[in-house]
Amino acid sequence: MMLIDRLNERIMACKAPICVGLDPVVDAIPAVYFAGGASVTEAIYAFNVDVIDAVHDLVPAVKPQIAFYELFGSAGIACYERTVAYAKRKGLVVITDAKRNDIGNTAMAYAKAHLGKGSPLEADFLTVSPFLGEESLAPFIDVCRAEDKGLFILVRTSNAGNRMVQDAQSSDGRTVNEVLAAYIAEQARASLGAGGYSAIGAVVGATYPQEANVLRDAMPSSLFLVPGYGAQGGGAADVVPCFNADGLGAVVNSSRGILYRYANQGCSREEYRASVVAAVWAMQADIYGALRQGCSDMMY
Amino acid sequence: MMLIDRLNERIMACKAPICVGLDPVVDAIPAVYFAGGASVTEAIYAFNVDVIDAVHDLVPAVKPQIAFYELFGSAGIACYERTVAYAKRKGLVVITDAKRNDIGNTAMAYAKAHLGKGSPLEADFLTVSPFLGEESLAPFIDVCRAEDKGLFILVRTSNAGNRMVQDAQSSDGRTVNEVLAAYIAEQARASLGAGGYSAIGAVVGATYPQEANVLRDAMPSSLFLVPGYGAQGGGAADVVPCFNADGLGAVVNSSRGILYRYANQGCSREEYRASVVAAVWAMQADIYGALRQGCSDMMY
Repeated sequence: MMLIDRLNERIMACKAPICVGLDPVVDAIPAVYFAGGASVTEAIYAFNVDVIDAVHDLVPAVKPQIAFYELFGSAGIACYERTVAYAKRKGLVVITDAKRNDIGNTAMAYAKAHLGKGSPLEADFLTVSPFLGEESLAPFIDVCRAEDKGLFILVRTSNAGNRMVQDAQSSDGRTVNEVLAAYIAEQARASLGAGGYSAIGAVVGATYPQEANVLRDAMPSSLFLVPGYGAQGGGAADVVPCFNADGLGAVVNSSRGILYRYANQGCSREEYRASVVAAVWAMQADIYGALRQGCSDMMY
Repeated sequence: MMLIDRLNERIMACKAPICVGLDPVVDAIPAVYFAGGASVTEAIYAFNVDVIDAVHDLVPAVKPQIAFYELFGSAGIACYERTVAYAKRKGLVVITDAKRNDIGNTAMAYAKAHLGKGSPLEADFLTVSPFLGEESLAPFIDVCRAEDKGLFILVRTSNAGNRMVQDAQSSDGRTVNEVLAAYIAEQARASLGAGGYSAIGAVVGATYPQEANVLRDAMPSSLFLVPGYGAQGGGAADVVPCFNADGLGAVVNSSRGILYRYANQGCSREEYRASVVAAVWAMQADIYGALRQGCSDMMY
């Protein structure tokens, strides 16, 4: 079964088109993880294990943000590798949020690093940034095709300052957004799973529901990764336009809204896991409820 | 002395506004580095040590491309750390080519990872990509100001496919290029070294000399990192517009053109180092000759 079909099946089984961001912010991690003189990266790994244990049967995917691991150099990347391996062992789809971008053999090195079979950092999906143009995306797409992996190309990010680049108008009159959406739609059509969806996808922020509508129409078979829900201001109603009428086609991410929502610094590991479960339940109810209302042909 | 002044002093002392790219492509590294059963990352480190030994008194800077290290996961990043540390010990300015981009506390994590004092990956300069807009650049600039570090923001990359995004027109009629150049010029003015230059710089490809001219005027005090010379098709005359009349303001990178130009797979380490020295001399003569001709107020 292809990655995209496996992911959609898990989304329907969990009734949760949700991904939990693994963004370990040291100041926010409960003190218990540092007990007994654990190093920062040991603490982060133990923290991640608890998050994964708490969420692995509630959601289909996790999204570690690699910047928070790079911060600790090679020790951080080793912690990242262990985290990815543990999440996969628990049956989760892993989305590496790295927004890599480059050209030629450098882009190919990034693609192989994050999506190549047997690479120490091998994940299922990777986020990439298209500032160097379509030619910079091709090596990533090639690796996805060859290895049945997925891509989320930045199209409309969730931040207020995105417009300067993303709304700029190309020489043919289309915006950068539109050019990218057309390119992604074309690439997605060439790699559809059995369910009609493709793992060649796009990042579309929850903070721009009207534009999400337009982008959804432009990329009907692409999976969207949707940041901006919760902490960044997007509500459940705002994410509905990122989905198709069948309730599929998008995965909504929450990082801080899950990891640190109900946790307190002094809690035990058991209490921490319970806080994560409670936060996922709240998000699941919120998103799933909005989809049941907003999707005319809900599949689950 | 500020980083930018130290770099300019070294450029003048070496008569070489040149940076050597440390892009270890395993298939191109001479066999001797793998002798005795060295692991790939051990081989890459020994290779880098020889390159650094060969170039450290000929050029002011090296630019490791982190993708080629990420390819080997945490072991690759450990090799990267050792390479950066060795280059610094040899007096070289280190430019991390990573083209990172993100927003908020994620951008801050990247900035601290690559430019923060005491970080395992601490370099002097970092390349960053502006796809998420000016707001995504601010955390990097803040760290540069606080820690006397430098930035090369992608403005005009050397690849043919760059125009779709980089030439697109913003709502105020300016291109993405022009908006970025104005922003960088403003940030640079706010952090000038004693010599009138700033470490808040831009990536401007050697493959677009006419546009380099315009961008040079738009960002008079910013340092340019110039890719595209040599292997990518830019000649010495093409890089002259990236410089000011004083022969400063830019650093021209070459990776493959230095590392693999005269090397052969069967050479000894001594022969390999000699091949690197010869390639640097050829590049130095080429670039310096063009600047002597093209710069009216050459300072060195």
